[in-house]
Amino acid sequence: MPASPIRKLAPLADKAEENGTLIYRLNIGQPDLPSPPKALDSLKHIDRQILEYSPSQGYLSLRKALVNYYDRYQIKLDPNDIIITCGGSEAVLFAFMSCLNPGDEIIIPEPAYANYMSFAVSAGAVIKTVVTTIDEGFCLPKIEKFENLITPRTKAILICNPNNPTGYLYTQKEMNQIRDLVKKYNLYLFSDEVYREYIYTGSPYISAMHLEGIQDNVILIDSVSKRYSECGIRIGALITKNSAVKETVMKFCQARLSPPLIGQIVAEASIEGTEQYSREVYEEYLERRKCLVDGVNRIPGCYSPIPMGAFYTVASLPVDDTEKFCAWCLSDFSWKDSETPEGTTGETVMMAPASGFYSNPDLGKNQVRLAYVLDKKKIKRALFVLSKALEAYNAL
Amino acid sequence: MPASPIRKLAPLADKAEENGTLIYRLNIGQPDLPSPPKALDSLKHIDRQILEYSPSQGYLSLRKALVNYYDRYQIKLDPNDIIITCGGSEAVLFAFMSCLNPGDEIIIPEPAYANYMSFAVSAGAVIKTVVTTIDEGFCLPKIEKFENLITPRTKAILICNPNNPTGYLYTQKEMNQIRDLVKKYNLYLFSDEVYREYIYTGSPYISAMHLEGIQDNVILIDSVSKRYSECGIRIGALITKNSAVKETVMKFCQARLSPPLIGQIVAEASIEGTEQYSREVYEEYLERRKCLVDGVNRIPGCYSPIPMGAFYTVASLPVDDTEKFCAWCLSDFSWKDSETPEGTTGETVMMAPASGFYSNPDLGKNQVRLAYVLDKKKIKRALFVLSKALEAYNAL
Repeated sequence: MPASPIRKLAPLADKAEENGTLIYRLNIGQPDLPSPPKALDSLKHIDRQILEYSPSQGYLSLRKALVNYYDRYQIKLDPNDIIITCGGSEAVLFAFMSCLNPGDEIIIPEPAYANYMSFAVSAGAVIKTVVTTIDEGFCLPKIEKFENLITPRTKAILICNPNNPTGYLYTQKEMNQIRDLVKKYNLYLFSDEVYREYIYTGSPYISAMHLEGIQDNVILIDSVSKRYSECGIRIGALITKNSAVKETVMKFCQARLSPPLIGQIVAEASIEGTEQYSREVYEEYLERRKCLVDGVNRIPGCYSPIPMGAFYTVASLPVDDTEKFCAWCLSDFSWKDSETPEGTTGETVMMAPASGFYSNPDLGKNQVRLAYVLDKKKIKRALFVLSKALEAYNAL
Repeated sequence: MPASPIRKLAPLADKAEENGTLIYRLNIGQPDLPSPPKALDSLKHIDRQILEYSPSQGYLSLRKALVNYYDRYQIKLDPNDIIITCGGSEAVLFAFMSCLNPGDEIIIPEPAYANYMSFAVSAGAVIKTVVTTIDEGFCLPKIEKFENLITPRTKAILICNPNNPTGYLYTQKEMNQIRDLVKKYNLYLFSDEVYREYIYTGSPYISAMHLEGIQDNVILIDSVSKRYSECGIRIGALITKNSAVKETVMKFCQARLSPPLIGQIVAEASIEGTEQYSREVYEEYLERRKCLVDGVNRIPGCYSPIPMGAFYTVASLPVDDTEKFCAWCLSDFSWKDSETPEGTTGETVMMAPASGFYSNPDLGKNQVRLAYVLDKKKIKRALFVLSKALEAYNAL
């Protein structure tokens, strides 16, 4: 399993914090926004006496609520198409385990969420990547590049849309190209759409579930983690209309007995009657996105495309190796001026080196992933501290 | 992955219930006892605003509480030896994934918990079994039978102690034999000890962690599910002093991000100050065990050894094929007399055919696993209904 450069930074961050340094954490996708009050309240009203196993597929009431949720996005489902999982993570693992044999290949545009690789290792599957570039705003490369990678072992294409880490949103045209390829070679299309709430450009959200003619090929990966700031409750879903896949996935579900009971109660309480919450969260991310992207692009030598969705961007920095630079920010850099908060010895930033999102770590060597999961004031200050760090680093 | 005869019964049970039949469910390990009030109360006092990711290893406070818990059993641990998992299930999966390569072999005494096989399939590992017999009370077979199965691919022995499904408790002598074998061949010893609270005979509980000289070989599998009637919160643990294994397990943990947050809060609240709860639960199971075992042995042609621990027994019935008999009880049998509860059309029993716990389904063909997770009055009535079912079935 690949060593993650992000994880390698954690001990440095711990040490910096021990020394009293305030760290602006732009590195992870842990929203700072509260969970919906209605969801938090649901915990206080659990009147069960036994915290018992739930059904392996997840509660029917939650699956019915999700059917209504997806209907808002013109995704028409039956509760039986939905299998509740322990986070989106388990959905990815079960999708790989159920659809792939050891040695089978998945094609993924990169940079990509690093844990797809970990789950592929667990399933014995092989990931082949098509590189997307910052210069093209991380759009889908020519579909021929995918087709060129297809072998008799190719079983699936995986996309994350809107994309983590790039924030890219696939267009109708791109989705149609993917659909045609999936159809031509009868591949599975794993589509991770956990960020669908966060699309900022007025462009339409095209779900893999919207694509015609490949109904039995699509496995939708979802999670309530990001949309309700509920990463800790571990409730995701694997959604498919393919009966054979459902049947196999259910075997894995039965082996692990049940998804988390209390998480399901909280998730169900989050789906209805939280429209205002969702609007407010959306508005907040919309403003943060502008704040972050504008701010990054104002730092000399830095560049971020405009991400259309999710709450990340991949930006290039004027350094040779962001792994080294990000580590240095934590181990050797600390900024202090009159605006540095009292009680801290200085400030620094934590970013995710983009090399962790590429299969070839030489790619994206001057890139970082930045998550806008801090409030605007903190984002502004973080970018100011970043600009000072870059000045100091490049003067070494 | 093997089809489980227990799962095959579920649709029959659903149908029987639809027809108004009351089913005494002796088939599953879902306790009917309430979770500790202190644990249920902890849910109402969660004052977090963000239900965020917890650390991949689990909260340190929970791991510290567990260190104190294990200390009561003379198991000396450091919080860093404990990795919190999503139920004992994830602990088994991660143990297999971390310690075994595809094709590696694990030796398991059978009958055994059926899902070990499912997790072995996920890990590409091969399970070899040593048969234990009802005539010998399911004690450990001669250790030579294990040794005979050892090949260059053998990497581990797995035991469940006290045992699911048999209720057997390994003696000091048997544990020493296992220890010597583990040492001689440098194997891993996976020890599933989730039923340690429930030992009824005054015999000592010998944990794999108590065995000297094999510290780096032992992987303890644990869960709060059974001991606090909290199967739904999905909190288990993988415990080892082997640093290399810990490091590998942590990679799997990081890939799935974090164990359930709320479950950890509930689990932590369950560990301290629940001594009286644990005593009462223990007393209850002690009486149920007597009630069940005495009752079974009074039915003509039935036999149950006396289980020393857990809350199961494997009993033999005077039928040729318990898969057929258990299905028939649900599909074709319904008992009604003056004691049949009002509002029901009749009564029947649901049991787990023991064939699901053997790798060779011809073994244990006349056996069932019975769980004493119902109160004594219901157990008595269930056994009466079972005796009537046997009479009717054998008169066909």
